[in-house]
Amino acid sequence: MEDDEGLKSYVVIHNIAKRHNVGTLARSATAFGVSEVILVGRRDFNSFGSHGSTSHIPFRHFYSLSDACLFLKAKGCDICGVEITPNATSVTTHPFKTSTAFLLGNEGTGLSAKECDFCDYFVYIPQYGCGTASLNVTVAASIILHHFAVWAGFPERTRDGNKFVVAERPVHKVGRNFCTETAESVTAERYLKRENDAKNGFFEDTEGSDSSNNLLDAVFGD
Amino acid sequence: MEDDEGLKSYVVIHNIAKRHNVGTLARSATAFGVSEVILVGRRDFNSFGSHGSTSHIPFRHFYSLSDACLFLKAKGCDICGVEITPNATSVTTHPFKTSTAFLLGNEGTGLSAKECDFCDYFVYIPQYGCGTASLNVTVAASIILHHFAVWAGFPERTRDGNKFVVAERPVHKVGRNFCTETAESVTAERYLKRENDAKNGFFEDTEGSDSSNNLLDAVFGD
Repeated sequence: MEDDEGLKSYVVIHNIAKRHNVGTLARSATAFGVSEVILVGRRDFNSFGSHGSTSHIPFRHFYSLSDACLFLKAKGCDICGVEITPNATSVTTHPFKTSTAFLLGNEGTGLSAKECDFCDYFVYIPQYGCGTASLNVTVAASIILHHFAVWAGFPERTRDGNKFVVAERPVHKVGRNFCTETAESVTAERYLKRENDAKNGFFEDTEGSDSSNNLLDAVFGD
Repeated sequence: MEDDEGLKSYVVIHNIAKRHNVGTLARSATAFGVSEVILVGRRDFNSFGSHGSTSHIPFRHFYSLSDACLFLKAKGCDICGVEITPNATSVTTHPFKTSTAFLLGNEGTGLSAKECDFCDYFVYIPQYGCGTASLNVTVAASIILHHFAVWAGFPERTRDGNKFVVAERPVHKVGRNFCTETAESVTAERYLKRENDAKNGFFEDTEGSDSSNNLLDAVFGD
């Protein structure tokens, strides 16, 4: 693996049902040098478990997975599904080729056939015991991101005592747990979302909504 | 690394404050072929997050860390602290030598000086980003256990579709989330514990208690 400062990793979160998983995932993402967390569908998330990490890592939002993948492909990323498919490669072999976006499945159902169609290839984590069919989604993602960082040769963070050094916390220009432009649009959208949730079920994907995409660009633009 | 069917891994949990972490940890532990989860101090735990995994992996209880380490040393284990100490070795180098028990620190404070004294050596997980001083304890433990399983050459579990095959759930002879012999002793001990907690603080280690050790032996004997 040649040293390439341009290598980047991304995490794509689509239909994660348990929002506290997003906070712990953000903590792992910043630990492992992930460039951005891409949220698809729901725009709000709970940062429980992030230990403040959500203020250190950019979140970008898309309403549809196809828009998210177009964005990532334009950045030169492979889309790698994290799923135990028959043709998946063990992450321990480091099958990465370039900058990579890792697509995570729902906690209960994994990646759907439609989600799999967006993936260039799949990685899985070998298991050895008899007691669980799969790992917790945050644990799985963390192991994958750890291996990518090792493969990419990211420079290790400085330590101080028994901790890695954390940067000064950035100023929050907007509420950090909600990806949006203005408080007014949040309020309006929350109202519409509640209406929609009541009709369609709480975890309904908002794909196909006519709300504008990439609202986070204003906050976390390139 | 030579193939050695006798290699085993153990997880030692001492003073983990958030009990739901124990459930997710049990799920990772069974996924990565851990032989036993060793609980030190508190005897009760919450299996939230385990997805039933706690019924597939033996839990063993000790009131004191020194008793736990004596037990593990008698099994020929190294005691490996999971902590970012100055002399810790990156887990990516697989610095393991034999069967190993991994000692996890408290979520907030990590391993204490006293806990470190029990360790033969330390491993840590390299970090690359600026946003967190450390990983979630369950995430960290999972990455370490994953690497140990790879190093030890554990045979990979069979898959069926996009899942690893889970064994039939064992019959529960006692309440599975409480390590004990009889309901009466639980009731008595809970009462004493509540009294003690009220005096000493909820997360007080019960080390030094005169209750008998290894109550789980009756359930999960060798």
